[in-house]
Amino acid sequence: MSKPADPASGTPHIVRTATGLEQAIARAAETVDRQRRPVALGLVPTMGALHEGHESMVSAAREQNDVLVVSVFVNELQFNDAADFERYPRNLSSDIEILARAGADIVFAPDESEIYPEGRPLIQLGSGALGEKFEGASRPGHFDGMLAVVAKLLHLAMPPASLDIPVAYSAYFGQKDAQQLVLINRMVSDLNYPVEIRSVPITRSAQGLALSSRNQLLNDEQARAALVIHRALKLIKGRADRHEPLYLEDAVGLFEMEPLVELDYLELVDPRTLRELAFNCQDTPFTGEGLVLVAATVGEVRLIDNITLGY
Amino acid sequence: MSKPADPASGTPHIVRTATGLEQAIARAAETVDRQRRPVALGLVPTMGALHEGHESMVSAAREQNDVLVVSVFVNELQFNDAADFERYPRNLSSDIEILARAGADIVFAPDESEIYPEGRPLIQLGSGALGEKFEGASRPGHFDGMLAVVAKLLHLAMPPASLDIPVAYSAYFGQKDAQQLVLINRMVSDLNYPVEIRSVPITRSAQGLALSSRNQLLNDEQARAALVIHRALKLIKGRADRHEPLYLEDAVGLFEMEPLVELDYLELVDPRTLRELAFNCQDTPFTGEGLVLVAATVGEVRLIDNITLGY
Repeated sequence: MSKPADPASGTPHIVRTATGLEQAIARAAETVDRQRRPVALGLVPTMGALHEGHESMVSAAREQNDVLVVSVFVNELQFNDAADFERYPRNLSSDIEILARAGADIVFAPDESEIYPEGRPLIQLGSGALGEKFEGASRPGHFDGMLAVVAKLLHLAMPPASLDIPVAYSAYFGQKDAQQLVLINRMVSDLNYPVEIRSVPITRSAQGLALSSRNQLLNDEQARAALVIHRALKLIKGRADRHEPLYLEDAVGLFEMEPLVELDYLELVDPRTLRELAFNCQDTPFTGEGLVLVAATVGEVRLIDNITLGY
Repeated sequence: MSKPADPASGTPHIVRTATGLEQAIARAAETVDRQRRPVALGLVPTMGALHEGHESMVSAAREQNDVLVVSVFVNELQFNDAADFERYPRNLSSDIEILARAGADIVFAPDESEIYPEGRPLIQLGSGALGEKFEGASRPGHFDGMLAVVAKLLHLAMPPASLDIPVAYSAYFGQKDAQQLVLINRMVSDLNYPVEIRSVPITRSAQGLALSSRNQLLNDEQARAALVIHRALKLIKGRADRHEPLYLEDAVGLFEMEPLVELDYLELVDPRTLRELAFNCQDTPFTGEGLVLVAATVGEVRLIDNITLGY
């Protein structure tokens, strides 16, 4: 449906404030063909430093929406390491070029003071046990900080109540950050947010490496070694598709043959609760649904990846 | 503006589910005179056991809204004492009579399973330091549990995005629960909820006692003694209005003369942050804005009250 990505369509409308965003959404929604009901409004939150993975996410959202908002905000609250936050790449003009190409209508690029006018929010979102495992274990506070900004952005890009047009509102998150996606889905259901959360599949290099801004930190040898991650996931996925026992230890064994790659975790979990599934290390054929999460370090670079089973 | 309370208008529409609520709001909004833009939609969250204080809150909201929703839900999460939750009075049919009289259009009375389908939410709201003082000190977890349900209700009663009518959305909370109101205002600004929070003044008996369902537990002698609370607040308010030093110890002294009443706290705080203001015990005339919070126990009954200064 809707307006396809059109490189000739010019740059998106850049807004810096919550009020500016609301007005831009209202104006954009009002110019959509009135025959289209409801108007589809989509939000893609990002921290900028956009790569092809983001671009494919924005393009997917473009296909499904009449009005497409992309936010670019480096959220200090989700960095557990201040130096990491300072170092995080920021290049709004190059991000805007990418977003123009991918067809975003509105880019919301607020300052820190617009999002956190009084500093750290007093009312905090707690991700609890779900946010403490896997990525949360190595980044304390990361997921609570992520939820704090997503909770705000989902409201800021909501269809303005002043509109006289029915609107269907969705927000897009990458399947790459699987644990983040689970937490956001939980927040949306636990707090009854009126938004549809859509996940966008992982974009991979031709060789299978999940795209990440960190991949550019790998040298050629490391990048080749890192492909073991996808090989391991494919091994498990193939067995799941054939309803065989998964024997996760075989996947773990692949890592043992790659001295450049150190496995942090490889776990089969319930895709909604992130609880470990009992198929690990068992001789029973796989049935149902599962999510395999993996994190590994190559040199100084920590990579994450995942694959869903049974879908 | 809008439809006045009309005892002849019949009973409100009772809905039990989130979907039922959304449909009822949409239907009600669609029947409002199309000349009225935006349609005013109001929500009054309650835990039932309604008394005249609630009734005056609902009547105030009725005056200001075209579509008025009142929720009745006893929220287990905000009870720190399971026995207190079990004991809490529930009488939906009498509540509905009161709400019909006060002019509610829709009563949302969900079951526990509708609000917490999977039990306690995994994503929790933390009220932090603001929720630990005053009432929070004697009721650990109370305010976090309150925020959990308010965060949901504010979404559940939001104008449906399917509407083709502009809507102005407000939610009403009593000034009686001053700390709760401060926390809700903080949550709404920290999370950018698209709702206007309106506070409703305290309703008092002719003698000055703030209305509370707990007042019925007082005998006549206790009820008379409890009037010291209002006397103390009026003493402070009078001095504030005349820009005199407040000498809070004089107000505390009034409690010392009432052996039936034990003062828990009486504090002058910033109305937004609940931080103590330096006018306490100082010889400087009062200026600016303040909030005096008081809690006292009469027999077995704990009463709270407050007064705003400088408004």
